[in-house]
This record gives sequence, C-alpha cells and structure tokens, in this order.
Amino acid sequence: MKHITSKDNAFFKHLKQLAHSSQQRRRAGNALLEGIHLADAYLGACGQPLHCVVSESALDNAGVQDVLARVDSERLVCLPEALFHGLSTVVNGIDLLFVVTVPTGRLPEHQSTDCVILDAVQDAGNVGSILRSAAAAGIPDVYCTAGTAFCWSAKVLRAGMGAQFLLNIVEHCTFEGLAPRLSGQILATTSHADQTIYQQDLTQPVAWVFGNEGAGVSEAWMSVVTHPVKIPQPGGMESLNVAASAAVCLFEAVRQRSRP
Amino acid sequence: MKHITSKDNAFFKHLKQLAHSSQQRRRAGNALLEGIHLADAYLGACGQPLHCVVSESALDNAGVQDVLARVDSERLVCLPEALFHGLSTVVNGIDLLFVVTVPTGRLPEHQSTDCVILDAVQDAGNVGSILRSAAAAGIPDVYCTAGTAFCWSAKVLRAGMGAQFLLNIVEHCTFEGLAPRLSGQILATTSHADQTIYQQDLTQPVAWVFGNEGAGVSEAWMSVVTHPVKIPQPGGMESLNVAASAAVCLFEAVRQRSRP
Repeated sequence: MKHITSKDNAFFKHLKQLAHSSQQRRRAGNALLEGIHLADAYLGACGQPLHCVVSESALDNAGVQDVLARVDSERLVCLPEALFHGLSTVVNGIDLLFVVTVPTGRLPEHQSTDCVILDAVQDAGNVGSILRSAAAAGIPDVYCTAGTAFCWSAKVLRAGMGAQFLLNIVEHCTFEGLAPRLSGQILATTSHADQTIYQQDLTQPVAWVFGNEGAGVSEAWMSVVTHPVKIPQPGGMESLNVAASAAVCLFEAVRQRSRP
Repeated sequence: MKHITSKDNAFFKHLKQLAHSSQQRRRAGNALLEGIHLADAYLGACGQPLHCVVSESALDNAGVQDVLARVDSERLVCLPEALFHGLSTVVNGIDLLFVVTVPTGRLPEHQSTDCVILDAVQDAGNVGSILRSAAAAGIPDVYCTAGTAFCWSAKVLRAGMGAQFLLNIVEHCTFEGLAPRLSGQILATTSHADQTIYQQDLTQPVAWVFGNEGAGVSEAWMSVVTHPVKIPQPGGMESLNVAASAAVCLFEAVRQRSRP
C-alpha cells in the first residue's frame, strides 16, 4: 500500500482533478466509485480497480478491510483524512474510493435481445433507478441518447447500486445511429394507447423506450414505436414517474416470462 | 389583485418566513406549491389556495393566466420579480406560488381498504414517486412513520406531481398507533420470501409496507407482515429501488383486479 501525505503529491493532484471535474473523468475514461457497496459490486462483476483509495481512519472499518483484502496491494493508496475529504462528494460516508475505467459499450449491428433506450431521461436518480431495474430484470443492453444523465456520474452510480457493472451501456446514441439496428417490437408507454401493458405479449424480445420527465418520448422515437401501450391508472393521476413506469414495464415482462 | 412592492411589507415578510423555514410552515400548517402543474392540480382536487403569489413578469405567461382566472381575486398577490425570487426555491421556473393549508389526514379505527405504509423512506424523490404511484393505482390512504421524508416539502411535492392532493396522508404515525388498526393481508417485499408477488392473490385489500432505502422494512413492521413476497430478479441484482419496487407491487394489484 502506498501512503501519500502531501497535497502536492502528483498522484494526489491527479486524483483531485478526477474528483472535481467530470470533464477530466470523461477525458481519462474514468469513473469514481464511492463507498463499500459499489466497491464490492465492482470487484464482483468487473475485477480489479485502477486504484483503491482509503483514508487512514477507514482502515479500521471491517467492511473496508474486506474490500482491501481483495484488491492487489500495488493498487492501494492511503491518505490522511484531511486529504481524502478533498476527494469525496459523500458527506459522512465511508472513506473508500475506487478509480475505475468506464467500460466501452458495444453497439451491435442488429439488436436481437431486450434493450432499454433512455431518450433524454435527465434526472440522475431516475436514470440510476432504471439501470437498477433493468439489471435486475435481466436486460443486457441500455442505450442513452443525448440529454440523458451521464450514467457514470456520482449520483447515477449511487442510485444504480452497481447496475452499471452488469449492463452494456452505450451513451450519446443518436436516433439515426440506433433506430435502424432495432427489429422486433419497440414499446413505449403513453396514456393515449388503447392496448394496456398487461394485454401485450412481452415474451419475445422488447426494445423499451423511456422518455424525458417533462416532454415524454420524443417524436422521432415515438414514430418507430411498434406498440404504444398504457399502464392503467384507476386512481386518476396523469402519469407515473418514468422510473416507476419503467419498473412496471420491465417486471411485467419478467412476470409473463416466468409463468408456469 | 394586491400589489406588494416593498420587502418591508408585513405580508411579504410572512411569505418569506414560510418559504425559508419548514418549521414555520409546519407551525402554520401550510405548504408552498411552486409552478403551474401543482397549482392546476390543487385547484382541480382541493379548490382555492390561501394565497396565489405571482411575479409581475409571470403575468404574461398563458399558463399562469389560466391559473389566475380560476383563483378568487382577493387571494391574488403580485410581486416584482426581485421580491418573488426571494421566495422561490425553483431556479428558472415559472414565478407562480400557492400557499395552501396542509390537509389533516384521518387515521381510521379499522383500515378496511388498501393502504401504503412508508416505514422511514427517507429520500424525497422516492417518497414523491411512491405517492404518485399510489394515487395512480387508486390507493386511498398513505401512512408515514417517523423518519419518512415530509410529504409536503418542496422536493416531495415536486416529485409527487399533485398526488398529495388525491391521497389521505397521515404523517408521524407510530407502529403502536397504526399496526392494531390493520386487518387482512399486510405485505412487504423481501428477497428471502418463497412466494413471488405474482403468486400472491392481490384482489383483496392490501396494506403495503415499504421500508428504508438502506435498512429495509424495520423488524417491528416485518413482525406483523402476513405475506412476505419477493419480486423475481432474474438479472442478479440484490434489490430494486424502493419506489421502483412499490410501483411493481401496486401495479401488479391493478393488473390482477382488472383481469377480465
């Protein structure tokens, strides 16, 4: 384990730049994972981080010790608390940070399995929740258009709870680049549909399109939707939160496919 | 319409206190609704606000004009933009604010219809999303224990999109005060359950218990759950976001009850 004690250390300066600039992180192709849960999930799904950074005081924490025992020792960096807190965005968290390489997503020629398309879903909590639901439902691929929250930001990582490590995620997709690769049924929810999600046969692969919190699914994407469906809302609200709606859709497919 | 131009005006000072102190709002039994959507939803569900406050520049907005036309003129207050922005928590929003009385929830002797119990659900976005799903699913009553985010805060109101006006919400419920009023099936999701949510008969009234984001449903509440159920997660995540999980549960009941 390397110990760094000076804020003028070159590697600490590098960490600080990564921590404070999303632009720097994107340029380096890196993401920062904060806390034990994300570190544990990353080790389980992806293997070794680039760097594992802890504060001196966190070395006493049993959960941190479990993580450190699984990381190659040359990747371990220990900082005094004061330096560590210059890196973290979490208040009152556990002082553990992974620096990892953001996986490069793969865009297949033809999408033949389930996928989720996030069409300018802008709230970080919603994007994280949908990634978590998609990973739980066994969806392999998530494609994000411009305007969707960055899936590897601190907030989306926190909300995703490790879902990012189980999914093939491609960001900055364009409609023109993505839509022609889809075949089979393309679904979106709309209150104007006649068919309910429960009447729709979801046992075959589905491309799900979930839209912006305010504007809904864009016109371009709506034009390629093969099956608009509605979620019946007997209580008379206009609509659901997009992450709630996605959960209802993805797990209705799970239900239909698990029927005896 | 009353025009106020001085920051020393007594009523403006009162508004500012309400806007900046959740304690003041609770003491007065008031909530502040920001923006056209919440104002419109409130007028539709509850009637007149105590006060409707707009900025001078917002008077030109067509959506604002529609709202103002439905509010009794003696309740209208117009402020210069600079004063209005001292009240609002929304950046780049529409300068429209309702001051309303928070409805007093009713705790029945015996709960004989569907209800949702929020057991220390702490994230404002999650609470708002669950209220929205509950209202959409036609659940009449929501009971919140200590530790659950305040349902009438700006963030929960924004996330709830007007659900608060359709529900009977009782906050600060204790386990001892609430649990004995329940009869029939009490459900909570847990990954340890044998039964799936899809195998459970949800056509009869259900009391749903949704727990804290980290700790889950508390031991006390788990001890009165009559049917622990799981949401199958073929993709191998540990769990769903609590608001996603609530949406899956509440709409599985909608599905079962709408079957031909």
